[in-house]
Amino acid sequence: MTPNPSAPALDFDSLLSKRAKTMNASAIREILKVTQQPDVISFAGGLPAPELFPLDGVRQAAGAALDKYGPAALQYSTTEGHPPLREWIAARDDIPASNVQIVTGSQQGLDLLGKVLLDEGDLVLVEAPTYLGALQSFQPYLPRYEQLPTDEGGIDVDALEALLTRLEQEGKQAKVLYAIPNFQNPTGRTLNLERRRKLVELTARHGVLLIEDDPYGELRFSGEALPSLYRLGLELHGGVEKNHVIYCSSFSKTLVPGLRDAWVQAATPIIRKLIQAKQGADLHTPTLNQMIITELLPILPAQIEKVKKAYGERAAHMMQRMDDLFPRGALRTTPQGGMFLWVTLPGGIDTTAMLERAVSRQVAYVPGSPFFALGGGQNTMRLSYSSATPEQIDRGIAALAETIREGLD
Amino acid sequence: MTPNPSAPALDFDSLLSKRAKTMNASAIREILKVTQQPDVISFAGGLPAPELFPLDGVRQAAGAALDKYGPAALQYSTTEGHPPLREWIAARDDIPASNVQIVTGSQQGLDLLGKVLLDEGDLVLVEAPTYLGALQSFQPYLPRYEQLPTDEGGIDVDALEALLTRLEQEGKQAKVLYAIPNFQNPTGRTLNLERRRKLVELTARHGVLLIEDDPYGELRFSGEALPSLYRLGLELHGGVEKNHVIYCSSFSKTLVPGLRDAWVQAATPIIRKLIQAKQGADLHTPTLNQMIITELLPILPAQIEKVKKAYGERAAHMMQRMDDLFPRGALRTTPQGGMFLWVTLPGGIDTTAMLERAVSRQVAYVPGSPFFALGGGQNTMRLSYSSATPEQIDRGIAALAETIREGLD
Repeated sequence: MTPNPSAPALDFDSLLSKRAKTMNASAIREILKVTQQPDVISFAGGLPAPELFPLDGVRQAAGAALDKYGPAALQYSTTEGHPPLREWIAARDDIPASNVQIVTGSQQGLDLLGKVLLDEGDLVLVEAPTYLGALQSFQPYLPRYEQLPTDEGGIDVDALEALLTRLEQEGKQAKVLYAIPNFQNPTGRTLNLERRRKLVELTARHGVLLIEDDPYGELRFSGEALPSLYRLGLELHGGVEKNHVIYCSSFSKTLVPGLRDAWVQAATPIIRKLIQAKQGADLHTPTLNQMIITELLPILPAQIEKVKKAYGERAAHMMQRMDDLFPRGALRTTPQGGMFLWVTLPGGIDTTAMLERAVSRQVAYVPGSPFFALGGGQNTMRLSYSSATPEQIDRGIAALAETIREGLD
Repeated sequence: MTPNPSAPALDFDSLLSKRAKTMNASAIREILKVTQQPDVISFAGGLPAPELFPLDGVRQAAGAALDKYGPAALQYSTTEGHPPLREWIAARDDIPASNVQIVTGSQQGLDLLGKVLLDEGDLVLVEAPTYLGALQSFQPYLPRYEQLPTDEGGIDVDALEALLTRLEQEGKQAKVLYAIPNFQNPTGRTLNLERRRKLVELTARHGVLLIEDDPYGELRFSGEALPSLYRLGLELHGGVEKNHVIYCSSFSKTLVPGLRDAWVQAATPIIRKLIQAKQGADLHTPTLNQMIITELLPILPAQIEKVKKAYGERAAHMMQRMDDLFPRGALRTTPQGGMFLWVTLPGGIDTTAMLERAVSRQVAYVPGSPFFALGGGQNTMRLSYSSATPEQIDRGIAALAETIREGLD
């Protein structure tokens, strides 16, 4: 083709969609870049402990899947997902497999739910703080948000009731409430049983779809397991097809994240639209990956025990070091499972501004404010203990304590 | 939770987004269900030949990736993609790896491009007929379409020029032109060189982004390779950052589809937004899968030769049988590569209505009309030869010829 230096250069930025113009690089992603310097002890990432991955298990499972299914393990497959995997998932809650949609990571579940549920301006209720990735998934569909106050017991359901009542009086309607009831990302908090019941009942009464994101639920290392919102919804309505709770979970935190295998369970009209949306989004979740996960299911219970034990020890160690070294007035949550701890600092300490000083002391965390849909939490931070060694916790928490004390001077 | 039979059941359908309400089950998908009866010879699917998959290659590549990268092969990874894979792709067109985004199948590339480019009502120009999956990917973003007439040489670029001139006079602007220049799905046609040049020049001049979808380009079994629109764009503009052509391709048709590994190459402002959109869509393409594909790159040339040879023989055989048996007036395309043939039937034969009779004679195809964004093609059909044996071609084409002749009586 003849070079034509006068060929008009398109202004790509002006050609972007309205939703793309509102997208930003993930704040966490940019922060992680800063913290990926060698010698920095990072509590910033949310990575499962790689030394616990069932590496040989995956190797054997891949071989077994290729032996069992032959070329079909590498062929296009159905959008709904690998039937034995869907059946195993469905059996957990005694629902039909047709109410389960396999997705390419929980993140895709959230994206597809946003796609099929959210019109521009629709109101989404989220915890303050909430999972940043959910905000990123919903954002392209341009919803509005209201933040729900939270405390050690999770969402303040009385505040929720007041909000729903006010909305009703104003003739408004929330479309979706998004919640992470177990060992929430970022706070590590768990929604207590009484509030779970009230949350399910309130959202049902006010016609709000309740999206339950539960990637960590199996990783409880202390306290007693609580019923999922999904199960409470099944009980309330007496069946899967009336249940207004949409449940998302994943094999990323219990087996491995890099295969991207997760699922959504919901009433048929929702699942039907998820299938149609997923056809356009990626046709289907990789075939071999679903088969590998299915082959790994027999070792899942032992794997969960291993991960729980390690995370429980790491959390306990990090909490102990914090209690030993952090200044009075630095408050932390007490996770009963999962991967995260949340710290609220005293005074006017801005954790975003403090990060640079922390990194210079070779420790990193994620500042809390990006986890708030509508802002707030400037004095908060998220720390992950899931992939930290005892030595890293000792040195990292000591360095962080010094950084905080310096900020209080 | 206390069962409450009077708990209000949500009307899920009324809670769907506007875009979800416009989604339909894929016409092809529904058709494929009908044709999946045993004993039916199906030319309907668009499946690569599974007997050619490098099954042992994948097995060894998976082992090699796990040996080389250890747990990192199963961990979360970067949204942009596995660096060695991006570098290999970028080297094909001598562009920086930072202009390559790995995606979870070409389908995700199209979805993300729709997400970052298309606002409701934006005008998308598509071939008549075009790839149905692209329409499905773009549809959630609610664009409008104009169809471009095509013939044996691909898009009628004079008609395109007239359209663009008319739009300009009306003060309107097309946002995107979507084209499959090589062995198009569904027609098997190839855009000739003269038209490629004019297409690239016209779209540049009129400020229209040109999305080139090229999953089949490597699978040319006759005729001479033509430069991609992307390369012509590079030549026209003299560099990657001014190139208005966005290139999509995939390893699905050359290696295996079930791992879902594909890519998009584009100017940095587009790639930057694709990264942000992909973070919300699925975080990243599965780590192990990208590594498996990378390990398979050394066998890719031999694999491509194997696939080309098989598809070339199958296409030739199917064309010969059609020429022997189809009634005069049934016109077919002459693909020089890829997986598909397109047939236009004489008279008022409606291929959708005819399908049931074809299936009763134990042969299936895809009626052509779903491939038209704005309708048309009632007397057309797509046939795939990629995974058919000679015997299936003999019996299937004979049965189809009888069905067509019956329709002409």
